Amino acid sequence: MPFSFKLIKRANDSKARTGLIKTNHGEIETPIFMPVGTQATVKAMTPDELKEIGSQIILGNTYHLYLRPGDELIAEAGGLHQFMNWDLPILTDSGGFQVFSLSDLREITEEGVHFQSHIDGSKHFISPEKSMQIQKNLGSDIVMAFDECPPFPADFEYVDNSLERTIRWAKRCQAEMEGTDQALFGIIQGGIYPELREKSVKEMVELDFPGYSIGGLSVGESNEKMYEMLDFTTPLMPQDKPRYLMGVGTPEDLVEGVFHGIDMFDCVMPTRIARHGAVFTSQGRITVRNATYKKDFTPLDHACDCYVCENYTRGYIRHLLKRNEILGVRLTTYHNLYFMLDLIAKIREAVNNDNLLIFREEFYHKYRN
Amino acid sequence: MPFSFKLIKRANDSKARTGLIKTNHGEIETPIFMPVGTQATVKAMTPDELKEIGSQIILGNTYHLYLRPGDELIAEAGGLHQFMNWDLPILTDSGGFQVFSLSDLREITEEGVHFQSHIDGSKHFISPEKSMQIQKNLGSDIVMAFDECPPFPADFEYVDNSLERTIRWAKRCQAEMEGTDQALFGIIQGGIYPELREKSVKEMVELDFPGYSIGGLSVGESNEKMYEMLDFTTPLMPQDKPRYLMGVGTPEDLVEGVFHGIDMFDCVMPTRIARHGAVFTSQGRITVRNATYKKDFTPLDHACDCYVCENYTRGYIRHLLKRNEILGVRLTTYHNLYFMLDLIAKIREAVNNDNLLIFREEFYHKYRN
Repeated sequence: MPFSFKLIKRANDSKARTGLIKTNHGEIETPIFMPVGTQATVKAMTPDELKEIGSQIILGNTYHLYLRPGDELIAEAGGLHQFMNWDLPILTDSGGFQVFSLSDLREITEEGVHFQSHIDGSKHFISPEKSMQIQKNLGSDIVMAFDECPPFPADFEYVDNSLERTIRWAKRCQAEMEGTDQALFGIIQGGIYPELREKSVKEMVELDFPGYSIGGLSVGESNEKMYEMLDFTTPLMPQDKPRYLMGVGTPEDLVEGVFHGIDMFDCVMPTRIARHGAVFTSQGRITVRNATYKKDFTPLDHACDCYVCENYTRGYIRHLLKRNEILGVRLTTYHNLYFMLDLIAKIREAVNNDNLLIFREEFYHKYRN
Repeated sequence: MPFSFKLIKRANDSKARTGLIKTNHGEIETPIFMPVGTQATVKAMTPDELKEIGSQIILGNTYHLYLRPGDELIAEAGGLHQFMNWDLPILTDSGGFQVFSLSDLREITEEGVHFQSHIDGSKHFISPEKSMQIQKNLGSDIVMAFDECPPFPADFEYVDNSLERTIRWAKRCQAEMEGTDQALFGIIQGGIYPELREKSVKEMVELDFPGYSIGGLSVGESNEKMYEMLDFTTPLMPQDKPRYLMGVGTPEDLVEGVFHGIDMFDCVMPTRIARHGAVFTSQGRITVRNATYKKDFTPLDHACDCYVCENYTRGYIRHLLKRNEILGVRLTTYHNLYFMLDLIAKIREAVNNDNLLIFREEFYHKYRN
């Protein structure tokens, strides 16, 4: 059995759940946060460091890897796991989100999407079948269906037509992936229209995927609207399948997402802000690159027990960041990912202990942004 | 006893020796290679990784640290060891070499050197006393006297006058450092003039320093000339004091330097070329960033057993370097420093086994540049 999901606990006081995903490359406790390794590397981190901080699964980007170094080269190297020396589970996106973000450089047809590379303007075509073929070459454990992520805002009719096509594409993806042991997730769209979210869930669930992603959120709508959509959508989804909220989120999003019934998260934000000198602390986000921290010889976060907080000071890390020293970005990245993985582990524990509401209250009591 | 040097072995067939330096922060087996940590970090490496690959001592740059973040800030942080989380020995240079390299921006007087910062043009003055005060703030275990490193080429008279001043400055450094437990090394200059090298050694040895550096080599003269100068100079130096060849060198320089009686080396080259995608192998240097290695799924060096060679391929590292991924530079840096430290350890072993000539022959048989 290459992929399975077992529900472990359902909270009494919220939609939160815990569970266990099994894959050929190991198990994943849910809810989980997935660090993003866009170009076959989680920026600034080794695979060993990722394991050290409790990463159970990472995400790879189909669009970037298809363009460079090419999915065929990665297949020659033995697949993405072997290419990048990561032997735990990998989830790959479909490339759709990146291609649709190219706006002026792409044209959507029923067959697929014609687009020009953002790098050299070269012409490419990705169809649902092509996206699956690339993800087969990458050899990821969890594969995303090729969907359209409509722009925000988009009117009801556009979103409706788009999600109809996404459903037709999902069937083509399913056909293309038949016989592999990679788990294909169907993607629920529908923008901020409850009626369309409901329709999308219904049609996707009929196709019986091993897991479901929720797309098209955190794309410009307010946080309240996003949580409202989750609150509406997750109860329509099957309890016995994992639910992945794509491209989300912040520390607050993890707390709220789990509260609203989400099992999996990914986001580039923790690593991206790290490269700009910002870090999470139990009291909220700080920009350690700022002059305020020049002579601050205390850890990034007093409440944190990660390698960085046990060995380095804000003043030293600020110095490194100001000098553009690689070690500076290494330390902020390591700490931020640790913060996210530690937070999700604590959330998991709170759900298992029927304690999420209290945990949530205590979290917000300290964490202010 | 804060600093001592014990000669362990003198080779029969060359000027090579092995020894043991003791400092308040630990012991150093000689001959040794010292990774350079210019801005309070060996670029791209953590202190833990430096220890993992066998670094016994690292070098810090007085000029850079004086300007940013400032030696007083570092003193407030508890000294350079504590600031950068490195608890093994540190050697600091005097800042002289960097200041003299500013050519148009500095003026030398008997009192010291007036110069403008290469960063913001601000005006500064470093005297022998000031250099010592900065190095006291840094708290390094081994301190360099403030010397003039004459340009190359420079005529006999210029070099002669310069080294006379360097001797007067050395006395002032000695007076300033009195009572500290930091070991002050005297610096032997004299350019490529044997007569002046002899004079410099004689005067410095009279001042009875705990160790001696050889400066003003590898500044533009040929390798043959450098080795010729070493061959002439080291026999004039005391056997019971360590000898440090400043700013040198390449893998070949380690072999030749030890052969000619040198105990300590430092050089930015291994880390600098790593950032440009070049690595050492037992067969010579290769530029792994080149297209040749695109589909080369073998290690950087088959004969190497470092973390990088055991876990990553040339093709993957090339991909990372091409994408400007930090992990690429991390891996090439780690490997190159491992190569240097592994090489110097093998040289040490060869000297102890009266085997350096054979080791040297075998090294050159494989290593071709």
